[in-house]
Amino acid sequence: MNRQELFSKIQQKESFLCVGLDPSLDKIPAHLKKETDPIFAFNRSIIDATVDYTIAYKPNVAFYEALGAKGWESLEKTLAYIPEDIFTIADAKRGDIGNTSTLYAKAFFENLSADAVTVAPYMGKDSVTPFLAFKDKWVILLALTSNEGSMDFQLFEDSEGKELYKEVLEKSQQWGTLDNLMYVVGATRAEKISEVRAVVPDHFLLVPGIGAQCGNLEEVAKYGMNNICGLLVNSSRGIIYASSGRDFADAAATEAKKLQLEMSQLLDRYL
Amino acid sequence: MNRQELFSKIQQKESFLCVGLDPSLDKIPAHLKKETDPIFAFNRSIIDATVDYTIAYKPNVAFYEALGAKGWESLEKTLAYIPEDIFTIADAKRGDIGNTSTLYAKAFFENLSADAVTVAPYMGKDSVTPFLAFKDKWVILLALTSNEGSMDFQLFEDSEGKELYKEVLEKSQQWGTLDNLMYVVGATRAEKISEVRAVVPDHFLLVPGIGAQCGNLEEVAKYGMNNICGLLVNSSRGIIYASSGRDFADAAATEAKKLQLEMSQLLDRYL
Repeated sequence: MNRQELFSKIQQKESFLCVGLDPSLDKIPAHLKKETDPIFAFNRSIIDATVDYTIAYKPNVAFYEALGAKGWESLEKTLAYIPEDIFTIADAKRGDIGNTSTLYAKAFFENLSADAVTVAPYMGKDSVTPFLAFKDKWVILLALTSNEGSMDFQLFEDSEGKELYKEVLEKSQQWGTLDNLMYVVGATRAEKISEVRAVVPDHFLLVPGIGAQCGNLEEVAKYGMNNICGLLVNSSRGIIYASSGRDFADAAATEAKKLQLEMSQLLDRYL
Repeated sequence: MNRQELFSKIQQKESFLCVGLDPSLDKIPAHLKKETDPIFAFNRSIIDATVDYTIAYKPNVAFYEALGAKGWESLEKTLAYIPEDIFTIADAKRGDIGNTSTLYAKAFFENLSADAVTVAPYMGKDSVTPFLAFKDKWVILLALTSNEGSMDFQLFEDSEGKELYKEVLEKSQQWGTLDNLMYVVGATRAEKISEVRAVVPDHFLLVPGIGAQCGNLEEVAKYGMNNICGLLVNSSRGIIYASSGRDFADAAATEAKKLQLEMSQLLDRYL
């Protein structure tokens, strides 16, 4: 899926919502625990309930790895279950030297058929470009994250006051294209998104931090939307844990629909 | 295992060798491919052959993840097979926001019983400290890596000429102790190791890049050794792929022994 196709999906569904599939055994409804694969059973219901309102799903790989080989199987089944026309992001935050990054890319792009993987930039160009070598696949590079620790190094400034995350945006633009490179930019500091847009006006941004992390969707759209929307906004806990009872899927649908409606209005306003 | 215990192992075995267990199906000897789990069969033979010369093993998780759930099982079996008194490092280069890092920590420290995990610093303090909360477990934080791309961001300088990797060393020292925090410093730029030592004189360093990546062991010892050695030097391909035939384990033993002898002399010289 290239960025024009992604934009078509956004227009068609009037949504730029990404649902984070971050299930843990201690938080999913009790009645699912007797299933052979409770994690997959949970995800399947969430996907069925939310698929009309979302254009992307983003499983965070840590939630599956914490369960060992069995968790990896749940992740495989989840990604296989998501309909072909939905964009899938393996939120893995990987990054290693060249040949090793190629192995991670194979794990996520070939074995799991994800469309995109999140990558950490610390090791530089040869840790990122192996992912970019896969046709029709995307790297989503960490730029400015939504956590408190993002201030530790991402805001490290050079002698001209340029912060590290801007150096990451500037340099990495040379490595990929608008059709295979996006950036993670946290919603917890929406005003920073306009600074990001000054460096990368045309790239898609993956924006986590809406909902549980208290980012404001309207501000994200105001500062971040470009002429093809250019945003995927993720919500995880606010949707998947909207209810802990037997109505969890209905509750997830309600929350996803609420965000989709808000997004539809924002698309009307800013596009 | 704390750092004093690690030093005792180094003295006892006269070695600071770490063997990288990075097996791939296209490189292991052909006769192993009929085994139920060729990757584990390979690792088991390598461990048996090299265990007398090494104090640590470091599986790079990418090599296992590339094989999906089956690879994850091979990793579990490999870590379970390594004798208790050997230090084990899951080379995973993980790093995510707080609760997610805790999940990665559980995956590697609890499910896989690794002693240490490599962590990427880009997301800052709250992506690192969850790993440090596990008793008797270690974080090995990426500081200055051995690949070409390390120059892209790790050498990004502030207005006083301080490079990012030094900021990482300085800040992260506050988060952990000498007994739960080490740093990755590549051997391909041995002269830089003395600059690292100026900031972290007492921490252990994990030094990859010996062998296939052409780092020089003697220089690493000269610039990097402190009064309790303070070094774990990793070699992967030079040992595990010393022969591609039926004698692969013997050949691995020979290469590991060669490095151990060289290390024994360096310990005599510098300690």
